[in-house]
Amino acid sequence: MGELGEFALIDRINAGRAPGPGVLLGPGDDAAVVAAPDGRFVVTTDMLVQGRHFRLDWSSPRDIGRKAIAQNAADVYAMGAAPSAFVVALGCPADTPVELIDGLNDGMWAEARRAGASIAGGDLVRSPELVISVTAFGDLRGQPPVTRSGARPADVVAVAGRLGWSAAGLAALDGAAAVERGRALDEALAAHRAPQPPYEAVPLGEAPRPHAMTDVSDGLLADLGHLAAASGVAVDLHWPALREPDLEPLAAALNADAAQWVLTGGEDHAFAAAWPAEADLPAGWRVIGVVGEGSGVTVDGVPRSGSGGWESFRGAEAAPGAEAR
Amino acid sequence: MGELGEFALIDRINAGRAPGPGVLLGPGDDAAVVAAPDGRFVVTTDMLVQGRHFRLDWSSPRDIGRKAIAQNAADVYAMGAAPSAFVVALGCPADTPVELIDGLNDGMWAEARRAGASIAGGDLVRSPELVISVTAFGDLRGQPPVTRSGARPADVVAVAGRLGWSAAGLAALDGAAAVERGRALDEALAAHRAPQPPYEAVPLGEAPRPHAMTDVSDGLLADLGHLAAASGVAVDLHWPALREPDLEPLAAALNADAAQWVLTGGEDHAFAAAWPAEADLPAGWRVIGVVGEGSGVTVDGVPRSGSGGWESFRGAEAAPGAEAR
Repeated sequence: MGELGEFALIDRINAGRAPGPGVLLGPGDDAAVVAAPDGRFVVTTDMLVQGRHFRLDWSSPRDIGRKAIAQNAADVYAMGAAPSAFVVALGCPADTPVELIDGLNDGMWAEARRAGASIAGGDLVRSPELVISVTAFGDLRGQPPVTRSGARPADVVAVAGRLGWSAAGLAALDGAAAVERGRALDEALAAHRAPQPPYEAVPLGEAPRPHAMTDVSDGLLADLGHLAAASGVAVDLHWPALREPDLEPLAAALNADAAQWVLTGGEDHAFAAAWPAEADLPAGWRVIGVVGEGSGVTVDGVPRSGSGGWESFRGAEAAPGAEAR
Repeated sequence: MGELGEFALIDRINAGRAPGPGVLLGPGDDAAVVAAPDGRFVVTTDMLVQGRHFRLDWSSPRDIGRKAIAQNAADVYAMGAAPSAFVVALGCPADTPVELIDGLNDGMWAEARRAGASIAGGDLVRSPELVISVTAFGDLRGQPPVTRSGARPADVVAVAGRLGWSAAGLAALDGAAAVERGRALDEALAAHRAPQPPYEAVPLGEAPRPHAMTDVSDGLLADLGHLAAASGVAVDLHWPALREPDLEPLAAALNADAAQWVLTGGEDHAFAAAWPAEADLPAGWRVIGVVGEGSGVTVDGVPRSGSGGWESFRGAEAAPGAEAR
């Protein structure tokens, strides 16, 4: 890769990639130009660091590329916006095999397409380990953003997508115990390597929308805690609606707690939202609780102690299943 | 910093910072919302890695923060756009002093303000060394972007801002020879630590604009080489218009070549543009050459061999003065 040089590598990365309709000017100039039809755009950025957010011995380059785009796309959808474009800054060692870059790039493009958008440009620099910094843009289609602060007492809390599977996959990769192969293990590993946020479940534009929404990236309790605090309300979850029986044998084999995975595991990038009580939930959503007066998050009325989620600097040791160590 | 935790640190970073008018929804949700009044936005991203793009023993945290924003803001201006907002993904070791983060953040905000914009949000993760990934947005104010591809034969080539000063500062920091203190050395060091692109010289909106423009980040010859190639033209530079006599004593003391600094040193983030021959150049611009038929960049008619610029993977050893090693 050091032999190819930056400009040849950038040409290789861009070769045969056709930017989508939201990209008015693609790679090759000082900057790109992206459409923002309603005069605003949603923007979010996330950085993934090798050894911390992914491991090359646990995930393929393609999976890592998909994950990097997926976690940013999920943040855009969580605002009620449709992704319009991504830009990617990539740092990598000079001895990185060019096939690794190709795999990352393939994964990023595949997930960008799945999210309905394309990659508008980026930066490529040398760094001691792989660092992937993605910035994602979205189109609100003339509607206000769906923030975390609009939940109201009597709303129902619902989720789209799976919870705890990425944490289970990480525990299986990280655990000393060998686990018998099977569907649950395969799905957990796949969920950890490349989450599949259920983009299609998120209402966009004129579709009936929730009062408040977030993606589940720090863990359900932590993310609903942020939503409850921003809205000035309390959330009570109903455990039977959350329980994942398919994870329980895996948890038993790994000497872990499936409930902990479901309630505090991040990285599944499911969507959690507070919907009006009278709403007909769209396909893909299931009710998991209710909004009330007060503050904090309870499960069947019982407060859960601790932050119960993923925090970049403090939580590493306290949040099993939430990071690649 | 590990003691504070991610969420407390993010609160600290955002405390007392008021987003500018272009930021419709600031930090604190899954994503921010930024204005794009003419239905499009310019976007560029650059990653800076500790030890490669900056050194903590050579630059203050504030300077590093300013540089990270400045090099992105310069790319936005180089499209003929006014910066509207920035987002920043920051990776840092768990033992990073919180004062370092404060300094970076102060520098980023100061330069964002100087560029006419503010910081809309970001991400904070743990990484083995400091990594700063900035994405910048700009408003074209209803005009087409000024790309690199619009130069035409008989255009004049002009530059706004200084050339070679950042490379001189880096050579002074990197050199074994002690150099006598003086104004030139101080200015060169300052230019390397925190470039000051002449934003105010760039025409925006309805002001008369150049046919093609770029910022000088890889070195004048390399960047004009890209512009010439994109436009399908040749560029001939006039050395007497480029010579920086104030750098010559410094170059002599460092056993270096001031012409090399001026022609191939990146990181000053001056602006270079091809203007119609009949244009009255705005304040801050000086003519340095002419566009002709053909291809490539010459200096007083003589081709310069080699790429003569900064390339991330191949150029490290070949481009003195272009990176922090």
